[in-house]
Order: sequence, then C-alpha cells, then structure tokens
Amino acid sequence: MRALKWIAALVVVAVLAVALVFFGNFFSKNSSSVNNSGTTKTTSSSSSKKGVQVTGKADDSVYKTVIKDGKYLTSKTRGLTAQQNAGNTFNLVGFEDGLLDFSKDHFSTSKYVFQEGQYLSTKTAIDWLNRKAGDNPTGLNPEDNGKTDDSRAPIYLQTIEEQDFMTQDGDNLKLAGIVIGMGMNTQDVYQKEKDGPSFTQDIDKADRIAHGKEMAAEVVKRYRAMKDIPVDVPIYVAMYAQAKDDSLAGGSFYSWNVSKSGDSLGSWTDLNNQTVVLPMQEGTTSAKSVASSLNTSFTNFVDKVQGFFPNLSSVTGQAAYTDGTLHGLNVKVSTQFYSATEIQSFANYIAQLAPSYLPNGVPVQISIEASTGMQAYVTSDGKDDTYTVTVLGSY
Amino acid sequence: MRALKWIAALVVVAVLAVALVFFGNFFSKNSSSVNNSGTTKTTSSSSSKKGVQVTGKADDSVYKTVIKDGKYLTSKTRGLTAQQNAGNTFNLVGFEDGLLDFSKDHFSTSKYVFQEGQYLSTKTAIDWLNRKAGDNPTGLNPEDNGKTDDSRAPIYLQTIEEQDFMTQDGDNLKLAGIVIGMGMNTQDVYQKEKDGPSFTQDIDKADRIAHGKEMAAEVVKRYRAMKDIPVDVPIYVAMYAQAKDDSLAGGSFYSWNVSKSGDSLGSWTDLNNQTVVLPMQEGTTSAKSVASSLNTSFTNFVDKVQGFFPNLSSVTGQAAYTDGTLHGLNVKVSTQFYSATEIQSFANYIAQLAPSYLPNGVPVQISIEASTGMQAYVTSDGKDDTYTVTVLGSY
Repeated sequence: MRALKWIAALVVVAVLAVALVFFGNFFSKNSSSVNNSGTTKTTSSSSSKKGVQVTGKADDSVYKTVIKDGKYLTSKTRGLTAQQNAGNTFNLVGFEDGLLDFSKDHFSTSKYVFQEGQYLSTKTAIDWLNRKAGDNPTGLNPEDNGKTDDSRAPIYLQTIEEQDFMTQDGDNLKLAGIVIGMGMNTQDVYQKEKDGPSFTQDIDKADRIAHGKEMAAEVVKRYRAMKDIPVDVPIYVAMYAQAKDDSLAGGSFYSWNVSKSGDSLGSWTDLNNQTVVLPMQEGTTSAKSVASSLNTSFTNFVDKVQGFFPNLSSVTGQAAYTDGTLHGLNVKVSTQFYSATEIQSFANYIAQLAPSYLPNGVPVQISIEASTGMQAYVTSDGKDDTYTVTVLGSY
Repeated sequence: MRALKWIAALVVVAVLAVALVFFGNFFSKNSSSVNNSGTTKTTSSSSSKKGVQVTGKADDSVYKTVIKDGKYLTSKTRGLTAQQNAGNTFNLVGFEDGLLDFSKDHFSTSKYVFQEGQYLSTKTAIDWLNRKAGDNPTGLNPEDNGKTDDSRAPIYLQTIEEQDFMTQDGDNLKLAGIVIGMGMNTQDVYQKEKDGPSFTQDIDKADRIAHGKEMAAEVVKRYRAMKDIPVDVPIYVAMYAQAKDDSLAGGSFYSWNVSKSGDSLGSWTDLNNQTVVLPMQEGTTSAKSVASSLNTSFTNFVDKVQGFFPNLSSVTGQAAYTDGTLHGLNVKVSTQFYSATEIQSFANYIAQLAPSYLPNGVPVQISIEASTGMQAYVTSDGKDDTYTVTVLGSY
C-alpha cells in the first residue's frame, strides 16, 4: 500500500507538472515573484490579468484569497497531499478544513488574506515525507531498520501542508504568518514485500506525540532558514492525528505551537478535538462516550428515515467535538433507487424530521446520494432549527 | 442498446421485487387498500405506523405526500423508468421534474396531496412500452415491420409516468386527478443484430406528434377502464420530447390535453418549452437562437472561471425557456485536482462572479464537482442577485 501510494504520488506530480506547462508555466512564474522577500505588488484593477490581486469576499467567515496573473494561486504541494491521504479521503478534507479553522483562530479573516502555501516545494515535501536515508538526508521519517514486524520503524509523518497569511498594504501583499499542518499516523499501513499483502502497525500515542514534537521543531527550523521568510514572521504548527484508513471520518488536531521569531518553539498547547462516526459501533471505546446521547437520537433518526424510504442503503454521520462540546454534524444518506419526485419528497421529509432528532445550535449538513451521485442536501446553519432544502435539479 | 436496456429493466424489476419482499411486501399491501375506489383512510397521529398519513410541508412550493404504514408510497414504475432512460439521465430527471411542475399548474400545492403513481403496474407499463405483437396485444409501440433501415417502425414511446393528486377529507384521501407524462423519442437507437453496433433513426416531428396523440388517447381510454378510477376524475396527459442520447440536457414538454370525464380528450394545447445546452455549439440550429445573448455572457463567465482555476475540466450549462423566456439555469463545473481550501476559495469566487455574468431573476444552481464527487454548490433563488455558497465539508 505505502509503496503504491508513493508511486501514485509521483505519477500525480508528473501529471501536475504536465498540467502546469499546459497552463502556461504557472508555478515557476509564481515562485519568482511571490517568494521575493515575501512582498508582492498587487494591482487594484480587477479586470487586469497581470500582477497579484485579491478576491472579494462573500461574508466575514471566509478569507480574501490571492489571484496571480488572473489565476488562483494553488498550493505547491496539493497533488502530493491528495495522494498521500488516498487511504482515507476523510482525513484529507478534515485535515485541510480543520487547518483553515485553526488558522482563523490566529489570523482574523477581516485582517488577513489567505494564500495557499508557496514556500514548501513539491520536491522538498516529498523528501521530507520520505524516510531518512543515504540518498535522502532531509527525510523526517525514521531510517528503515530492516524489520518487517511491529518492531519496524513506522512512518510517523504522513502529510504536511502550509498555509500563508498576508497583509495588504495598498498594492502590496506582505507575508504576515505561516501555519503548517502536520498529519501524524495513528496506524501505519505497509507491505513486507513489493505488491504483497498489506499489514498494519499501530503507533503508540505517546510515541507519535514525541516524534511529532521533534519533527515540528525541525520543520520550523528549516522554514526559518528559507531565505524569503523574515525572522519575525510567526510560524504556527498544528498537529493532526490521522484516522485509520477504514474510518468513516477523518482524524483531529491534538496540539499546536508557535515560533514567534527565530528557531525556537514555545510550549505546546493541547487541543481536545474528537470526531465520532455515527451510529457508534458496539464496543466503541469509552473515550467516545462524549457522543452517547447524540448517538441515541441519531439512531432514532436513522430508524425513522429508513422506515420512511424503502431501498435506503445507509445513513451515517460524522460528529465533531471540541472540549466535549459538539460543533458540527455531517450526515450522509445513501439510496440506490429513486425518482426525482421521491427525492423531493424525501428531502422535505428529512427537513421536517431533523429539528426533532438532530442537535440544534450547531451547523448540520445532510447530503442525499443515489448511485448516480448527489441528489439533494438539507442544511441548517445552527442559528435556528430551520433546515433549508436544495434539490439538485436538471433541465 | 435497446435490447440491453430491456434486459437491464427486467433485472431492475427483479431486484425491486426482491427489495419489496424484503421491505415487508410493501406494494401488495398498498394496492389492496389505496386502489379501493380511490379512497383511503388516513390516520391523524403522526407517530402511528399504521394506515395512510401525509407529510407536513416545508413551504408552499411543495406538495404534501402520502405515507402508507409509515413508509413513503413509491411509484409502481420507477425502476422501469429509470432504466428506460439510461441513455440520457438528463431526460429522466428533466421528465420527472418537469411533469411535477406541469402538475403544479393544474393541482395547487396548497389544496392537493401528491401521491406517486399507483394505478399503472410495472407489468402493465412494460407491456405498453413494448412493441405490439402476437404475444403483446397491448403494446403501444408499432409492430416490428422487419426493416432495419430508416424505413423500420421506430419505438415512439420511450417512457410513461403517472402522478396522482388526492384531496384530504378528515381521515380520508380521495383521488382527485391523475397526470400522465409520456416521453416520446426524437431519435430511436437500435441494433440490427443482437449485441451489434448501435444505429440511430431520427423521428420526424410531425410523425412523433401524430403517434403521440393516438397513444395518449389510447392510454386515457385504458386508464378510464381501470375499475378504481372514477369516471369524473380528470386525467391529464403531458407529452415530452426526449432529448437525444448524446445531449447534455434533457428534452421538453411540447403539448398537453385533459379528459375531464369519460374517454374523450379535449383539444391539444401546445407548450413552447426549450432546453438549451451552454455553451452552444457552432452551427446550433436557429431554433435555439432564443439563448444567443445568454450564450455570450455564459461564455464570458466560463472564460473568467477557467482562467481563475487551473485544471478545470469543463463548465457547462442547461438553460430552460418557456415561451422564449428563461426560467432557470443549471451550471456544472468540473475539476480534477483540488484541495479543500481551493474549493472554498473557488466557490466564493464564483459567488462573486455570477451576479455580473449570469442572468438575474431566475433560479441559478451551480455545482462544483471533482473526480471524487460533488464538492460545493453556489445557488441563487432568483429573488435577488445574491448567491449562497455551500461547501460540502467533512470532519
């Protein structure tokens, strides 16, 4: 599995490289101008295609973002990240969304402009994520100790992502802060021989946390050594525990630190986040009992929904907790057969049912899928207990 | 193709039958009670699982629907319809959604309860949709004339769907009207030999309309002969011209009629509906020139969007017109690579761009898809020019 993932990652990088050439040598243009002391000239005319611009924003919950020569400035490492997490796409989305939420706590959306990470190149990221070896001295994961059982040195660091926060001063954008997310494995999947069966190696929590702290310190040191990053720009690191590959939800961020200036990190602050898959399975660990009452009402909701609509395949949920308090719920309803009128009736039925069974006061997103794709979604922003129905029509 | 579709349809019907047994012999229970002089007893308690109930409704634009013994009353022919239209799923959704819109013009959502068609059984529908033959005397499509070129008798009637409208009187639901949609082929796809290559046969417009009128009269006569349908319940028929299989949009309803009582239909009323795929292809017929100014602004929108976001595969639209006036627009944006932050930025960018490029005053639905599925929606209800962004998150 792991070997396949790396091969896949390299293929993606190659495809991406071709795409970049196709789209006008996009990245190389960026790197020459944006990485120039972290300061870039912006143009104020939104119709101009040249130079750096920022998007407007729909509301205060989102950042303005950077447009360079008329194009959105994509992350340098996104293709890599996507493949790295291929074992569990919930990790991928949860990690990126969660990192952006973390960033919002430290860089106000009203003051800062968001820029996809531009300092860590794809090549450097691949080297860092690989094992340390004679031909890869910068590898952050441990050297291969030759073992193929639980005494092997696991891959601790699975993914890394950078987000940049800029301030706008007239026509210029200036780097004001960097947030680095590091996705740490709780379980490593590996093969004993090429194309052989996959084995799993659980990683001890204390071991994972200790290795994460070391790696984070090293990453901050390396970032600070990059010539375009000023010494006093704060660099945050946020540590994410990846969910296992077979989980129906992503992992969660468990601690963070910041280097205000220079190499040194401060002291670590723990984050108490949990993502719980609903309905909870029998024998779920007591650590997840935070969701036990929600699980009961969710199960009642599922019974009601499944009773209502024949041929329903499954109803699952992802509940996100911080410090023991629910802050969001996603529900996915899958069905195999449907007609357009059934979907309309069903979505409206769910909108009426949800306020009585699902928690109020937090955002709830219910998506209704058929084998042919997404059909409708029913959402509440958590401000009141009303739900909005959107049926994806077709003409 | 056609033969394969029929086989697929039969497989679906078989699967459906198994599902019905699994779900407690659901349909047979229904047919015995609902088809009882079109009157069924409803129970007023919403927690009761027995008897017939109706759902509440979120707003005035939707119907209340029928729940029978705690389950949604599904259409008897839905599995069949779905497979019949497999060549172009836009036809399927466009036909069903459009039929419901047609029904709303004749049966007010505030007065009537919607029930999925319960009078036409799957077996009868299959017989009707098949060719007339010695072993299928009720086939509505013409007998096979043995030809395999353009002189062959084509399949005119591709699909049929029934919708029932009920009035609620205390605990009873009473049939108040039936709407029958008939999907007519504009092009028939056939094979000269089993598993051989597919050929297409265009169907002349006048020929299609004439055959449709005959078939509609016959269908109404057969419905009126069903023992549970009172003689004075109005039966509407709405004729739909299916789009060709390779179209990126569905077809449109072109005429309707009603039998107020007895066998006889009134005079036909033409409907002037058009569905236009955007961007329009070079050489599109002048009949579609209704959309030429929209096509220009849509093309500018596409240029802007594609310039903004690298690796965008395609941006297509479906514009629906009635009597030359636009009444809705769906836009699908496909991209291959993405990160969660990119999708957020992109969706917000589109929400800012849309009011300047896309028409105001009509509902607009923009969906953003990646290879892993739907990522975000940007919608406007047409009441003002603001767009709502919904990013499908994950925890």
